[in-house]
Amino acid sequence: MDYQTYFRSELDHLREQGNYRVFADLERERGNFPNADNHISNAVRKVTIWCSNDYLGMGQHPTVLNAMHDAIDRVGAGAGGTRNISGTTHHHVLLERELADLHGKESALLFTSGYVSNWAALGTLAAKIPNCLVISDSLNHASMIEGIRHSKAERKIWKHNDLADLERLLAEQPLDRPKLIAFESVYSMDGDIAPIREICDLADKYNAMTYLDEVHAVGMYGPRGGGIAEREGLMDRLTVIEGTLGKAFGVMGGYIAASRDLVDFVRSFASGFIFTTALPPAVAAGACAAIKHLKTSQTERDSQQAKVAEVRARLDAAGIPHIENPSHIIPVMVGDPVKCKWISDVLMDRYGIYIQPINYPTVPKGTERLRITPSPVHSDADIDHLIDALGELWAQCQSAQMPMAAQ
Amino acid sequence: MDYQTYFRSELDHLREQGNYRVFADLERERGNFPNADNHISNAVRKVTIWCSNDYLGMGQHPTVLNAMHDAIDRVGAGAGGTRNISGTTHHHVLLERELADLHGKESALLFTSGYVSNWAALGTLAAKIPNCLVISDSLNHASMIEGIRHSKAERKIWKHNDLADLERLLAEQPLDRPKLIAFESVYSMDGDIAPIREICDLADKYNAMTYLDEVHAVGMYGPRGGGIAEREGLMDRLTVIEGTLGKAFGVMGGYIAASRDLVDFVRSFASGFIFTTALPPAVAAGACAAIKHLKTSQTERDSQQAKVAEVRARLDAAGIPHIENPSHIIPVMVGDPVKCKWISDVLMDRYGIYIQPINYPTVPKGTERLRITPSPVHSDADIDHLIDALGELWAQCQSAQMPMAAQ
Ligand SMILES: Cc1ncc(COP(=O)(O)O)c(C=O)c1O
Ligand SMILES: Cc1ncc(COP(=O)(O)O)c(C=O)c1O
Repeated sequence: MDYQTYFRSELDHLREQGNYRVFADLERERGNFPNADNHISNAVRKVTIWCSNDYLGMGQHPTVLNAMHDAIDRVGAGAGGTRNISGTTHHHVLLERELADLHGKESALLFTSGYVSNWAALGTLAAKIPNCLVISDSLNHASMIEGIRHSKAERKIWKHNDLADLERLLAEQPLDRPKLIAFESVYSMDGDIAPIREICDLADKYNAMTYLDEVHAVGMYGPRGGGIAEREGLMDRLTVIEGTLGKAFGVMGGYIAASRDLVDFVRSFASGFIFTTALPPAVAAGACAAIKHLKTSQTERDSQQAKVAEVRARLDAAGIPHIENPSHIIPVMVGDPVKCKWISDVLMDRYGIYIQPINYPTVPKGTERLRITPSPVHSDADIDHLIDALGELWAQCQSAQMPMAAQ
Repeated sequence: MDYQTYFRSELDHLREQGNYRVFADLERERGNFPNADNHISNAVRKVTIWCSNDYLGMGQHPTVLNAMHDAIDRVGAGAGGTRNISGTTHHHVLLERELADLHGKESALLFTSGYVSNWAALGTLAAKIPNCLVISDSLNHASMIEGIRHSKAERKIWKHNDLADLERLLAEQPLDRPKLIAFESVYSMDGDIAPIREICDLADKYNAMTYLDEVHAVGMYGPRGGGIAEREGLMDRLTVIEGTLGKAFGVMGGYIAASRDLVDFVRSFASGFIFTTALPPAVAAGACAAIKHLKTSQTERDSQQAKVAEVRARLDAAGIPHIENPSHIIPVMVGDPVKCKWISDVLMDRYGIYIQPINYPTVPKGTERLRITPSPVHSDADIDHLIDALGELWAQCQSAQMPMAAQ
């Protein structure tokens, strides 16, 4: 085989399908986010970011930045080792306590990312618990899917958010067979929310564990930012709550919160936890500061929700179709990868608006979309400009016979 | 099944075997590393760290810390998105250029850790290349093993560093079958080094790709810190060079460096690269500064090698057996998990010396050891104290009939 030829032909194939990705090369300006510089070849232009997962703007919050500066000044850059071999610092210990408290659990465990937390925790639980069956929502995130696959445990997929289908799968199994129901609270691409209470009821009835990914909800929902499960008063009913420090908390890292024994079990057996350098103390310190802040401050959550409502209302008024959902995510459906990229390019080039086109494999083919994430740091002028731009573009597309599928 | 009972009994089992891990809770003091505070319950005591992988002390180098401070001041905390969805910042782009240059390759790709880079890159290459056979050194790191397993490609294990065994496996295969030889340069637990040139010769002869993990060598070997392959003038002969930003470079993150098309291929298809929040810009900036510094400064490398030689000579003089090897890693073999932990505990409690016992699953059972990593920041007094403590302990163990297996 000629390896280079193979790689090139696979890349050509992606390009033909419109699925080749070009990353925007951004440079934020602290205090001025969502505005940023976009580096294109040797030029730089100003853009407004409308697709960040720094949902609350905590990535530039002075409390977070000061905590990071302070940690660097006090203890330096990296952790210098895996958690077991000199890499556990006091910042990790404090952050794990903060996370356990956030979710009302006995214990919490940090990972280098939300991806790794899902992969390692699901992978370990499902692999080690004898004869474990994993029952996985059909729209679960790639990191959960890979973790389950990695475990080599038997896996069944239940129809997305469909309780009857879930119950059917549970009822088929002997009551004493170990089972793990894996799902998310806010699904990040459609913005819909799982019926957590009813899933917990089924788990109780059929003696299953529950594993809830709250990656797109922590910091943003619940009186202390504990996520949808906190808002619904359900945290104690979940076996494992998983989250990220890289989205609403504005930094990086992932975690699980659960009983002391479960956490200790994953800590002791998960390859993806054990064999990797720990997060830099400054990252842990920044995330810890963000969590603490959002435990008491409601301002960011209220303001985000107001902005989301405002953008939705304005899109409706302008006749731009978007998926209705009960979360902060606004998906404007396009349904074609080439068209989706074209709109995104024009928004960037003509209007200085950055909304990344979401194509396969992040969403299924045929459901390509623009995913808009309003945040407290978007101004009224930003919203006006966004709606004007989308409105003009929409009219243009329609008159030019470029109808956009909407759902 | 009663899940909690299951977790508890597995943990009890670990405790009985002496393999239950307790993490030291450390707090470094910038400018004063390898000294640190060790938090024990509510007390704090001073310790000297002798087992860090911050091999050159770059984790407290002013150049690195200033770069991190500066990035936080300029652009804030987190990247706020995956690389594709608003998370590529100019700091990532610059760091990838720096890494490509370091290894003399066309291109480089960042991951959130060295673990993820191995898992995602090997997993993607071996899974996607049709009928790929992976030939893996028997002592490869967990992250490589998991990546290869994840790919579901056929895999054969060659005896550690054994060229005849590697050739035997290669010769069995049709010349045009895709093959990937995966190995490390410095093996981190024994400190031995692979015969890279001869492996590349075999790869050429049998039309195989080579994938070299230089995690424990980058920054430390070669005139610009490009690793063992740079030192031996072999970088251009390797298909992929993989490294970490979390050890000698003192921060966190991982990467591969390779041809433009191979890197673009992994960038386009690797789940573990695509579906995760990008590294914080400040982490990228700190790592970039460390790499740049070590490209021109020889001081840290020279000084580290001098300290390693000094510790080895002093161990020999004191009659403390350690594995001879051509690297910077000094493994003092104990061969029993309980004894290994006991020595480590006494070193910590009585002498304020922190050397983590290395037990299963990091090393095979029966090869438990103390792994000592001298660095430029260890003073002569630190070395004196280490040798005195080990000497006393060694004598004590022997008189108390606690012989230690040495190899
Ligand atoms: C549902 C879900 N889970 C997990 C992750 C991974 O989290 P992280 O970005 O911290 O790796 C993501 C996205 O990145 C996600 O959307
Ligand atoms: C050989 C080897 N490869 C990869 C890794 C993972 O690198 P990282 O710590 O950056 O995840 C390690 C250790 O952590 C290692 O020893």
